[in-house]
Amino acid sequence: MLVLALAIQDRGYGYVFDRVGMEPTGDPFNSISKLETSVPSKPLNPMINAGALAVTNMIKGDSALERWSRIRDFVQRLASDKNVTCDESVAKSEFETSCLNRALCYFMKQHGVIEGNIEELMDIYTKQCAIEMSCFDLARIGAVFALDGKDPETGKEIIPKGIARICKTFMVTCGMYNASGEFAIKVGIPAKSGVSGGILGVVPERCGVGIFGPSLDKRGNSIAGLKLLEILADKNNFSIF
Amino acid sequence: MLVLALAIQDRGYGYVFDRVGMEPTGDPFNSISKLETSVPSKPLNPMINAGALAVTNMIKGDSALERWSRIRDFVQRLASDKNVTCDESVAKSEFETSCLNRALCYFMKQHGVIEGNIEELMDIYTKQCAIEMSCFDLARIGAVFALDGKDPETGKEIIPKGIARICKTFMVTCGMYNASGEFAIKVGIPAKSGVSGGILGVVPERCGVGIFGPSLDKRGNSIAGLKLLEILADKNNFSIF
Amino acid sequence: MLVLALAIQDRGYGYVFDRVGMEPTGDPFNSISKLETSVPSKPLNPMINAGALAVTNMIKGDSALERWSRIRDFVQRLASDKNVTCDESVAKSEFETSCLNRALCYFMKQHGVIEGNIEELMDIYTKQCAIEMSCFDLARIGAVFALDGKDPETGKEIIPKGIARICKTFMVTCGMYNASGEFAIKVGIPAKSGVSGGILGVVPERCGVGIFGPSLDKRGNSIAGLKLLEILADKNNFSIF
Amino acid sequence: MLVLALAIQDRGYGYVFDRVGMEPTGDPFNSISKLETSVPSKPLNPMINAGALAVTNMIKGDSALERWSRIRDFVQRLASDKNVTCDESVAKSEFETSCLNRALCYFMKQHGVIEGNIEELMDIYTKQCAIEMSCFDLARIGAVFALDGKDPETGKEIIPKGIARICKTFMVTCGMYNASGEFAIKVGIPAKSGVSGGILGVVPERCGVGIFGPSLDKRGNSIAGLKLLEILADKNNFSIF
Repeated sequence: MLVLALAIQDRGYGYVFDRVGMEPTGDPFNSISKLETSVPSKPLNPMINAGALAVTNMIKGDSALERWSRIRDFVQRLASDKNVTCDESVAKSEFETSCLNRALCYFMKQHGVIEGNIEELMDIYTKQCAIEMSCFDLARIGAVFALDGKDPETGKEIIPKGIARICKTFMVTCGMYNASGEFAIKVGIPAKSGVSGGILGVVPERCGVGIFGPSLDKRGNSIAGLKLLEILADKNNFSIF
Repeated sequence: MLVLALAIQDRGYGYVFDRVGMEPTGDPFNSISKLETSVPSKPLNPMINAGALAVTNMIKGDSALERWSRIRDFVQRLASDKNVTCDESVAKSEFETSCLNRALCYFMKQHGVIEGNIEELMDIYTKQCAIEMSCFDLARIGAVFALDGKDPETGKEIIPKGIARICKTFMVTCGMYNASGEFAIKVGIPAKSGVSGGILGVVPERCGVGIFGPSLDKRGNSIAGLKLLEILADKNNFSIF
Repeated sequence: MLVLALAIQDRGYGYVFDRVGMEPTGDPFNSISKLETSVPSKPLNPMINAGALAVTNMIKGDSALERWSRIRDFVQRLASDKNVTCDESVAKSEFETSCLNRALCYFMKQHGVIEGNIEELMDIYTKQCAIEMSCFDLARIGAVFALDGKDPETGKEIIPKGIARICKTFMVTCGMYNASGEFAIKVGIPAKSGVSGGILGVVPERCGVGIFGPSLDKRGNSIAGLKLLEILADKNNFSIF
Repeated sequence: MLVLALAIQDRGYGYVFDRVGMEPTGDPFNSISKLETSVPSKPLNPMINAGALAVTNMIKGDSALERWSRIRDFVQRLASDKNVTCDESVAKSEFETSCLNRALCYFMKQHGVIEGNIEELMDIYTKQCAIEMSCFDLARIGAVFALDGKDPETGKEIIPKGIARICKTFMVTCGMYNASGEFAIKVGIPAKSGVSGGILGVVPERCGVGIFGPSLDKRGNSIAGLKLLEILADKNNFSIF
């Protein structure tokens, strides 16, 4: 989702959404069937695996290294933390075993949604997925979105307002995989879940929230994280609805 | 969606959402495949045809007539207009030809999502779908939701606040069929589209919007209505995101 | 499958196969998804539920009673047994509970594959499915097909040769539901399985086989029947391949 | 299909059919959806792309070169033609562009259906698909199957009888992609279609048939080839049904 913000800056709104849709999906995050039955064969949204891979593929750079560095630098700027980087051993292990993501990549390459070398893309993507952050980092990034893209300390724009709003909207409609609808009812804030068990929450104009809880439910969201956000939202009236 | 508000009042949150899901779907509004591949076989959300049929089936009453009357009365109260009712000839024509909705009903009956007589349910449902309203009626109902369920003139509660918020959330995640995600990005307000070409919009704490434009795009939404809302939202900063 | 032989005689090859396909399917016999994703929306073959319903709908007659009588008489002629008829109480119970078949019917009616009154069709179809036969009856019918449509006692034609061959071909490609491919490998004869646990087998130019074994596997075929046919086929070199 | 005969000899019946199913499918030959919805995720049959890739992956050999050589030698033996080999430039072009087959491979690798290096497998598979044969070669191979695996000139066994019969059965149920059912009705012989426009036909105990017609219908079969076989079968009473 952070990479989406960078991709729209790199390529523009039109280029990005010609290749990735805007619709939530009732299917699991790693489904390949929907790619086949959709016409044209583009991923339904940037939050599911296929869409995230397609978005990473859009990041500009002369080499895989430069493209990865630009992603890492952008995340460091959002987190205001120069030490944020990926866990190389996690990235390497993912790189070696991630057959399903390669299947998604080749399927999209066949249909012109992505281009270029798949192994390079997998290298960047597995690093991006292995970025290590503390809860504080997550919350700080959430705060940037809560302020429509502005740095909470300096007030300087890190993400253009329009792009920050697009990201927040996706967080509401698709951020919690195929439990996004239920989360919108029960919690009602923009949030993005990760397979690590992290959740980045955004309470507009108020704050960001960062949570880690490694135990996941069957739809891929942190069990403790969901419960905690439900309680927090209820007590503090977080819902935007 | 109005019927959902009544159904939750009749049956309670638990009963309703045991039988109908909360998730948006990337599939067309009248799809039957997803019912088959989902486990359990419940409709993904109350906004698609299958879900709307299941919700209507939950309305209490001793007879089909009483159940229909309760729906009509509730809509009259929301619109503050005693003349709102259904167009009998439209309802009758729909009743006679609506094979796909009967297929959805029998499929759900097989799986225990709905019960009772299907022809009676079709009678109520086709009437409900044939309710005639002016743009003013739609806007007035939108205003009720904008005020979290309160009557905009008297301030009296028509829908409990919690239920009004659930409805608004569904409008954001699923209200515009499988264009809901794009609508959230481009317009960003709770809204519900109907096959007649009507759109009911909700601008929280500010106003309701009612639009009719009979020409529909391939996803079932009013072409003019979408464009008008996009312009209105942009000019008046309607987006909740 | 017997009804298919009658339907082709009633309507001709072109009419029948404009409305029902000829292709085996890897899906379960009662699937509705494939109807939706197929273009045009016709059942893949006459052996799955949807196709069987569509074929029964093609039988000519001035009333439901006459259409049912023609089916029953045809089966009596094939079995050379005037006492073959349906078990009324089984038919009635099926008629009252068979929501999934009604869903399939209405879906096909929506797409113009079937026409007329669905309750009448369900009445005929549930009777047809409740026809009671002994193993001897089944074997005798198998023998008719083994002789390309001729009565094994009198040598008189009951089914035109071309139609008998079409039926035998369907038995090979689709007769054992979505285990037809495996059955062709392991047994290799035209056969038709029924939900009652009956199997009608055809050993071309040699004999018919009738088996009942009520315990079904998860694909809907008689467990004992499959095993018995495998042994019989192996010992007697039944396979046509 | 020839590779299947070799794979069963290499690995045995149990190993092969634990990894590849025996069922025909109503889906297109290159579909990936069915892999996802099937439990377990194995290809429905060895004739569709996914199944053919899985079967090639089973061929034994210490290197990609040896595995490919064994396939080529086996085909040469069947065709009794030492000059049969692949068109390297076609194989190379396929190797470079075949993203969909790579997607299928990685998907199956994820699910344990295939193992090892995908690029090596693609190298072998694209060569195998680029094997050049004359109509005479095809017919001669058909004749081997017509004689249950025996060399038509020497009478020596090239394929064990049981395996030859399995192959013939697959040709009937799945050999013509998702037009196999219609072909069985209209022609009624074991046959295997290739994307090049070639068709290999088997008339049991009588002869083999080899046809090339490069213009394909939408299901991937040679238009002229289908018509020619229909006429031949009708005139010469080829049907096994």
